Amino acid sequence: MMEIKGNMMSVREDVRVLDATLRDGGLVNDFYFTDDFVYDLYKANLAAGVDYMEFGYRADKKQFDVNKFGKWKFAEDEDIRAIVGDNDTDMKISIMADVGRCDYKHSIRDRADSPVDLIRVATYINTMPEAIAMIEDAAAKGYETTCNIMAISKCQERDIQTALEMLAKSSVKGVYVVDSYGSLYPIQIREITDMYLKAMAESEKLVGIHAHNNQQCAFANTIEALSIGASMVDGTVMGMGRGAGNSSLEGLLGFLKNPKYEIAPVLSFIEKHMLKLIEDGAVWGYNIPYLLTGLTDQHPRTAIAATKNHDTKYLDFYHMLLDD
Amino acid sequence: MMEIKGNMMSVREDVRVLDATLRDGGLVNDFYFTDDFVYDLYKANLAAGVDYMEFGYRADKKQFDVNKFGKWKFAEDEDIRAIVGDNDTDMKISIMADVGRCDYKHSIRDRADSPVDLIRVATYINTMPEAIAMIEDAAAKGYETTCNIMAISKCQERDIQTALEMLAKSSVKGVYVVDSYGSLYPIQIREITDMYLKAMAESEKLVGIHAHNNQQCAFANTIEALSIGASMVDGTVMGMGRGAGNSSLEGLLGFLKNPKYEIAPVLSFIEKHMLKLIEDGAVWGYNIPYLLTGLTDQHPRTAIAATKNHDTKYLDFYHMLLDD
Repeated sequence: MMEIKGNMMSVREDVRVLDATLRDGGLVNDFYFTDDFVYDLYKANLAAGVDYMEFGYRADKKQFDVNKFGKWKFAEDEDIRAIVGDNDTDMKISIMADVGRCDYKHSIRDRADSPVDLIRVATYINTMPEAIAMIEDAAAKGYETTCNIMAISKCQERDIQTALEMLAKSSVKGVYVVDSYGSLYPIQIREITDMYLKAMAESEKLVGIHAHNNQQCAFANTIEALSIGASMVDGTVMGMGRGAGNSSLEGLLGFLKNPKYEIAPVLSFIEKHMLKLIEDGAVWGYNIPYLLTGLTDQHPRTAIAATKNHDTKYLDFYHMLLDD
Repeated sequence: MMEIKGNMMSVREDVRVLDATLRDGGLVNDFYFTDDFVYDLYKANLAAGVDYMEFGYRADKKQFDVNKFGKWKFAEDEDIRAIVGDNDTDMKISIMADVGRCDYKHSIRDRADSPVDLIRVATYINTMPEAIAMIEDAAAKGYETTCNIMAISKCQERDIQTALEMLAKSSVKGVYVVDSYGSLYPIQIREITDMYLKAMAESEKLVGIHAHNNQQCAFANTIEALSIGASMVDGTVMGMGRGAGNSSLEGLLGFLKNPKYEIAPVLSFIEKHMLKLIEDGAVWGYNIPYLLTGLTDQHPRTAIAATKNHDTKYLDFYHMLLDD
């Protein structure tokens, strides 16, 4: 097995925590967060010592109807600035830019003119050249950049290796292991993280982890990736995120031993805002249909539909997945 | 790190799955399961290829009021036999006997006269001599025996080592790593499991794992213990169990590659029985108070009370735990 980096008592100074609540959580409520919610989350993240806060996607307004989504689907500089001002803090701001869904050449201006620090490019394996173009564009504009290669559980390992080689030669700062379908177990996450770390070792790029909770492994997978050397970790408050959701920010802050991290501000934020969100109908988190799409390594869309429809015919659902 | 036993594609023939739904789940509803529920669970476990089904505790009727608990708190031979007949199947039957709460000398008869195959003795570290006496009593009566040393996260390692030495010399068949407070992370579970395996190597006793989900690591901890050589694994349907609950049986059956295991019968059982149980008010599973008792390595009783009272003052709750 791989070498363990750090131990349960030590501080890993290289770890960076990113709160992706607005971005992955926005997939739950179509990004309709109140300004009050977003401002208080910003304040909570600052008090909690979070290193990066992601404000949403920078989606293309020509492709997506602004009347069908809250503003954090588009996470424009002006909207971010209305919350953070000049963000004169130690916490950095990120947005996610999806290959093919972001008019990056026009909608991402120079970093000097933006409150954003980090552009996170998300791509499928077959659009790697476009992802690299976006990374180089953002890097040339002065941003930190990272890359999420999505749905790797469906990829050939040699294609992942090729993608990692492309990224190693690029301007990217870090590459995330992404378990899009929540289908991977800790033993697999460690192996994949090790592969990413080895591919990035020479170019000294960072490796990150973004996990989903379909099989209730999001948190465990996150801390296991960390334990063998991943250093950029994603969490969301209460694990809010598409379908089964993500690794919880509060769990992560509790786990990390660096005294700069505080769980208390996140607990207050949950009391004040998250419970209302749930009361008002936002639904995410582990259930049997998500277990089954995770187990069969499939996109959670069928499980999201079953959850929405309160469909509890689990055996029929499982058989449907096996027919896929 | 420890050696990995088996891989994601292989079958570990030595693994034995135990369904503890009636026993740990009984702590949720004071053991008031209908006969219909218990019979259908028995049938589902048989169809699913489960190796052991635990029917409850063998609690002392002099200590516990039979009017305040369902019959599976006492799991008498006659009640088990009313469900399983002579249990002429490949699945074995277990009960749990708590040190100090079971009048084992009188209430456990010879195995030849009982439908039970396995007596699982549960003990705290300070009652190990009594646990050994119970193990030897049960072994002499013809039973398989195992031992759960509870609350080890609060024990000194040298005391655990002493307990393991006592067990290695006893008639016990297997010893469980038990994360009573759900406070342990995968990296710790692997280390502890490795310690147990080493302590049991010479005497060729088995090592098992019983996990709790306070920090959403029950399933991950279970399969991680498995990956380094634990072979007796506990699950409960939908993770039903005290507080944050356990590792889910359906997750476990999905994970295991042995074709003798089937998840489908458990899915049917969930549809038919578990959803009604939840609808009727049974409450268990991960939430923020359980995360916080897990994180601070404390008994979940305060979190159980907070959950029951719908107390969502999480920050006050956390401060109370830190004052403890």
